[in-house]
Amino acid sequence: MTIKKLLIANRGEIAVRIIRAARELGIRTVQVHSTADAGSLAVQMADEAVEIGPPSAAKSYLNIDAVLQAARESGADAIHPGYGFLAENADFADAVAAAGLIFVGPDGDTIRRMGDKTAAIATAQAAGVPTIPGSGGLIGDLGEAAEIAAGIGFPVMIKATAGGGGRGIRIAHDAAEFAALAPQAEREAKAAFGDGGLYLEKMIAKARHIEVQILGDGETFLHCYERECSLQRQRQKVWEEAPSAALSPHVRADLCASAVALAAAVGYRGAGTVEYLYDDETGAFFFIEMNTRIQVEHPVTEAVLGIDLLAEMIKVAGGEPLSLRQEDLVIRGHAIEVRINAEDPANGFMPSPGTVSELHIPGGPGVRFDHMLFAGYQIPPFYDSLLGKLVVTAETREKAIIRLRRALGELSLGDQVKTTAPLFDALARDDDVLAGAFHTKWLEPWLEANCHTLTRQDGEAC
Amino acid sequence: MTIKKLLIANRGEIAVRIIRAARELGIRTVQVHSTADAGSLAVQMADEAVEIGPPSAAKSYLNIDAVLQAARESGADAIHPGYGFLAENADFADAVAAAGLIFVGPDGDTIRRMGDKTAAIATAQAAGVPTIPGSGGLIGDLGEAAEIAAGIGFPVMIKATAGGGGRGIRIAHDAAEFAALAPQAEREAKAAFGDGGLYLEKMIAKARHIEVQILGDGETFLHCYERECSLQRQRQKVWEEAPSAALSPHVRADLCASAVALAAAVGYRGAGTVEYLYDDETGAFFFIEMNTRIQVEHPVTEAVLGIDLLAEMIKVAGGEPLSLRQEDLVIRGHAIEVRINAEDPANGFMPSPGTVSELHIPGGPGVRFDHMLFAGYQIPPFYDSLLGKLVVTAETREKAIIRLRRALGELSLGDQVKTTAPLFDALARDDDVLAGAFHTKWLEPWLEANCHTLTRQDGEAC
Repeated sequence: MTIKKLLIANRGEIAVRIIRAARELGIRTVQVHSTADAGSLAVQMADEAVEIGPPSAAKSYLNIDAVLQAARESGADAIHPGYGFLAENADFADAVAAAGLIFVGPDGDTIRRMGDKTAAIATAQAAGVPTIPGSGGLIGDLGEAAEIAAGIGFPVMIKATAGGGGRGIRIAHDAAEFAALAPQAEREAKAAFGDGGLYLEKMIAKARHIEVQILGDGETFLHCYERECSLQRQRQKVWEEAPSAALSPHVRADLCASAVALAAAVGYRGAGTVEYLYDDETGAFFFIEMNTRIQVEHPVTEAVLGIDLLAEMIKVAGGEPLSLRQEDLVIRGHAIEVRINAEDPANGFMPSPGTVSELHIPGGPGVRFDHMLFAGYQIPPFYDSLLGKLVVTAETREKAIIRLRRALGELSLGDQVKTTAPLFDALARDDDVLAGAFHTKWLEPWLEANCHTLTRQDGEAC
Repeated sequence: MTIKKLLIANRGEIAVRIIRAARELGIRTVQVHSTADAGSLAVQMADEAVEIGPPSAAKSYLNIDAVLQAARESGADAIHPGYGFLAENADFADAVAAAGLIFVGPDGDTIRRMGDKTAAIATAQAAGVPTIPGSGGLIGDLGEAAEIAAGIGFPVMIKATAGGGGRGIRIAHDAAEFAALAPQAEREAKAAFGDGGLYLEKMIAKARHIEVQILGDGETFLHCYERECSLQRQRQKVWEEAPSAALSPHVRADLCASAVALAAAVGYRGAGTVEYLYDDETGAFFFIEMNTRIQVEHPVTEAVLGIDLLAEMIKVAGGEPLSLRQEDLVIRGHAIEVRINAEDPANGFMPSPGTVSELHIPGGPGVRFDHMLFAGYQIPPFYDSLLGKLVVTAETREKAIIRLRRALGELSLGDQVKTTAPLFDALARDDDVLAGAFHTKWLEPWLEANCHTLTRQDGEAC
């Protein structure tokens, strides 16, 4: 292993996760931290700790100079960015490399390319990865547009070039509706925005968010199958699974092959995720974007495959080839992760920082809880509210949901901190969730309709 | 599920384990407890709790009348005995059945039969399971004895009928030595015990303890592969693994088939373990005994197979057929369990009851800690010193040992309780352990030679 000392440019549960992986690889760890995190679990667990600034993330975890200075002072030879903060900052990756250090992730150019939506889509298309069909730019006369719409396949969204934020969008479900709506859309766009330019994009009414975990060492590229992440609130995933209950073996194979093709097209090095919209009705999938980092929900993949994604990405960064082969990656059972946030789901998900006055960690077979907690921990109010990720694994999806309920019942942080646990207890008893019948727009109306009336087994209101 | 309410006639970590399994099966739980265990984790977690007596186990956990009375009062319809205490008490199983309740385990007759060493060996032999070769009783004249010895195969133990506790045993490594030692043994036995009767038993100098987990529902019988339990102190297992690094696929298949044959021969219902001595040099294995209960070390089997043995045994007791098929049971990776006892390994394993002043539970991928702890828990001095079982799983045995070291480093119970954790940290760095080169007599001399000089990474003395 080239890497001897790894600086962790992150905080919270992912910092703990990285320390664990590094320790198993025989690598020393340096935990940078803001003044607010001086007593954090990651700081306690790391071999060394360096304070890099005040609580404000802009002046600490996002401060590239301070992070690089900490690396120089501590003699670290590599930096792991975790997720969020600087993880997809191409300039940071470049700066790390320019300082003669190893960045645990792909190079700056790859991060930049996949972070630019237009370049990412062009790269995907060149690699033969399906993207969301559309007119590929402004449409000319409306007769031509009708042909393009038919080619895309209905329903089609008619979008005003000058619109945005959902304004000026019309949905045509067939050719007749298109013929009626398109001229209307053009007139209204002209009136509203002073610009009648229209473009078309395929409408996927009930899409799932499905993503493929990939690994690359620059020469070999593997997929680690998919994760189902359709349960989202405000575009934030709250519940993730592996595998997806929605995919046929045939679609799964195509989806995973396309993710590998994209990874190969950019000569990917490290762990990454290719995100797709998946249309339950047609079985079609469409590339959305690629995340060039480890993701919050990586443990569900580790659980069903029995692998260690963090170890793999650190080893690749250190110059080793992938230690896994595609044929060794076999899905066993079903895993579900829920995000335990310091938020009150019965009160608009209001942040609930406070002190962990007692701590009971769920345990037993098939339960993993990746967290940043200890009894007496004072959750600081300055950062993301994620406290931990409860991951359950069982032989089947049904058994995993039952295990999730059992594990949630064991979790206790005392009475000073509200968490999202009651939400997941309610979801784990919902018929649609039990049937796996949801999509990316399912959770928000469910929350409006149900959450205030739902109670946990112990009587606590959701 | 026939069972609606399960009484747990045990304490500690196995009580917690049973509560978890019952909860996932939708079964209510009744935790009986001595006055010393009124505040235990199991009592906190169970749906109901019934006090059955004073701290003395003889007057509480071993008190059949008190346990049955608690079942009647609470309306429980089944009793799980865990391990130890009443778990292999055939009279208890009979009494439970006579009270019209379900005993989670085989019936009293099966427990009785397998609990009688002579009957168990006869049953094994009738089922074609190899037992330790010997003269099968007293030998007559010494000429005949030489033939028998040659038939058993050297080395052979010459034992005096009137001896015991290792007295009067001689080991002959070949026919010449036998010819010299046998008359001498006869004379000395006559002089020492007044009885020159001798019998012969095969000597396995360096035997491993390998056991096969079996499951039966009275009609179908499965094996769940083997566990390697050779690291023992005073005949107590301290470190268990699955699978065994010593078995060839061919021997593994024979061993497991013989365990299934024995289970079938007695129409076994529930979870059980068939224990063997295994001779590394010849690949031969010999039945020792069968345990008609769940075992402390069952989690290593659950870990590599991805199954839930407790759920299976409860379902079978409730009248359901096994939900597993032999072909679904596939070993993935390697698991190691170490027993975290409240004992000081640097001081003759002196019990160390006390208060858990702080608690950090190891976590992350491939780590499970089945325990009975919470911050502030006062470990009572009245019972077995087992606090928990740290189970690690990884792709390979080598990685599992590295993960074990990492997880042990995360475990903290505060400064008032000594545990066996430092012993396992030392073992996990020992060359023989790393090579899997040990046998049942390996650990005790190792402890004599090494333990006082070894230190953990953090400098704590072993």
